[in-house]
Amino acid sequence: MKIAVDASGADYSPDEIVKGAAMFASTHPRATLVLFGAESEISASLPSGVGNVEIVDAPETITNADAPALAVRRKKSSSLTKALEFVRDDPDAVALVSAGSTGAVLTGAVLFLRRIRGIIRPALCPALPTVVDGKSVLLMDCGAIADPKPANLVQYALMSSVYSRCAFGIESPRVALLNNGAEAGKGDELHKAAYPLLASCPGIDFVGNVEGRDILSGAVDAVVSDGFSGNVCLKSCEGVALALFDILKREILSGGPRAKLGYLLLKPALKRVKKKMDYNENGGAVLLGLDKIVIKSHGSSKAKAISNSIAQALSLHESRALDEISAALAEYESTAP
Amino acid sequence: MKIAVDASGADYSPDEIVKGAAMFASTHPRATLVLFGAESEISASLPSGVGNVEIVDAPETITNADAPALAVRRKKSSSLTKALEFVRDDPDAVALVSAGSTGAVLTGAVLFLRRIRGIIRPALCPALPTVVDGKSVLLMDCGAIADPKPANLVQYALMSSVYSRCAFGIESPRVALLNNGAEAGKGDELHKAAYPLLASCPGIDFVGNVEGRDILSGAVDAVVSDGFSGNVCLKSCEGVALALFDILKREILSGGPRAKLGYLLLKPALKRVKKKMDYNENGGAVLLGLDKIVIKSHGSSKAKAISNSIAQALSLHESRALDEISAALAEYESTAP
Repeated sequence: MKIAVDASGADYSPDEIVKGAAMFASTHPRATLVLFGAESEISASLPSGVGNVEIVDAPETITNADAPALAVRRKKSSSLTKALEFVRDDPDAVALVSAGSTGAVLTGAVLFLRRIRGIIRPALCPALPTVVDGKSVLLMDCGAIADPKPANLVQYALMSSVYSRCAFGIESPRVALLNNGAEAGKGDELHKAAYPLLASCPGIDFVGNVEGRDILSGAVDAVVSDGFSGNVCLKSCEGVALALFDILKREILSGGPRAKLGYLLLKPALKRVKKKMDYNENGGAVLLGLDKIVIKSHGSSKAKAISNSIAQALSLHESRALDEISAALAEYESTAP
Repeated sequence: MKIAVDASGADYSPDEIVKGAAMFASTHPRATLVLFGAESEISASLPSGVGNVEIVDAPETITNADAPALAVRRKKSSSLTKALEFVRDDPDAVALVSAGSTGAVLTGAVLFLRRIRGIIRPALCPALPTVVDGKSVLLMDCGAIADPKPANLVQYALMSSVYSRCAFGIESPRVALLNNGAEAGKGDELHKAAYPLLASCPGIDFVGNVEGRDILSGAVDAVVSDGFSGNVCLKSCEGVALALFDILKREILSGGPRAKLGYLLLKPALKRVKKKMDYNENGGAVLLGLDKIVIKSHGSSKAKAISNSIAQALSLHESRALDEISAALAEYESTAP
């Protein structure tokens, strides 16, 4: 069983990516990691004595400045393109982990890999922390498709429901629709049309609309969204968390010795809060809908985050999440009018 | 000069609404506040000796459970309907402040009041705090129109730009488009179509796309958005702030005596942060595009917030914001192709 790791194109690549891969490999001897990037650089970063890591030389890098669709086609020696070809062609390859350009990973994966039978378009599904300790909430789609159709949203519900079951062991995940009001009948044309489809969709526990305010309350397990507002939601959450810590820092600095002492005492608790709110801590966003697992780690991932993303890929593979999605979709299609 | 205040339909109405109105009235003797609600209840809450407050008996209440469009038409004795009629008909009435059902205020205002000439549809514009001390950012639209056209977004840019100038004294407000990526060409069909219109719009300083992550950075003064994702953004911001304080509280409670002492010392700073992040503190969301000022205060507004919303209405009136919007629109129409 092999997992491909794109070692280029991220903020701290290749060094942190390679170290993260080595961290994972040393504790998972039965998995083989295949690293794609400039061979000499990867070798230099790779700790000695890690046996289950292979390197494929891929000297080109796709950056955020590249046009995604062009880059994955033209930069044939790029780490991402080579990794995608490998995952597509090697029957032992089960997953790709990349912290590179989101656009390139999305576009490349859709171009190179096969969709699960019946899937209209794959979409991006990160897990966000909630106020309930140890509980995450899935948000799908976070930006793969800005203009989906209602039928796409039904597939997001089915896929995120399976993901929640496989990754977090939630037997009957509560699925909600991200909307601009809690009542049925709210929303723009897309969301008004999607609501009844979700409400009558067999195999999911649809609990109605959820507003941005309640996503992190822990009341629901998966939130279905068009890629545009899902992206706005995800990034707004990130922005507010950053802004809050920023404002708190300023208040502490201007609060005199009392505030500074308070901060020193509260520092461990604040650090734990920061860690809990960091949705990058526990792996990456999964691109669901393809016949291989694709995980997009945050661009600023360090070794620990990369190791977590690889572990997440392995766990999804072992829980047979993609087969489950395939089965859920087949069942839905057989019962749909 | 009269300002109508809807004293019913909010979480703490009429008591906190009436107290807030009295608070404002006692320091602004030249303004007359006209309170709409059950006369006996308003009288009971009104401190004695406030001369410039009038009461109009309106015994019915529109609640969040009512269907907005039906309620404002059928509940002819409701505080909101009577207040809207008053603002429409009294030439001295310049503004309405309500903390009641958002849907009813939006629908009622659009039904009863006249639009500024040329405005397609009025939209909702709250001010959010930023990480820059004392600086706010406007977000328009936050939920009035879920399915706007590109032309609506151009009008939001013109209106929020004027509002930023009139309310915060920013001479050339930096206006951005809320999008799922920073680069030009990002977004769904609506945002792709709106971008070039904004870029070529005279009279505004359009600085391109802004992602959810950067709204609160203080780099822009006004953010233009469709009502659906603007609403998702606003409520997500609110949700994350609540979640963060919730998680912090738990960490403090489980952090032993050290964390508790730290919290006690840091409490004033944390309170200031909470206050700064509370976008309800400094008034309400303005419904812009009508020929009278309409301000929607948060449903859970207390006296101070109501007083602030009335002050905001007065300030917008005195800065002649609606005339400025009218002029900006006329200029735009005269130069548009």
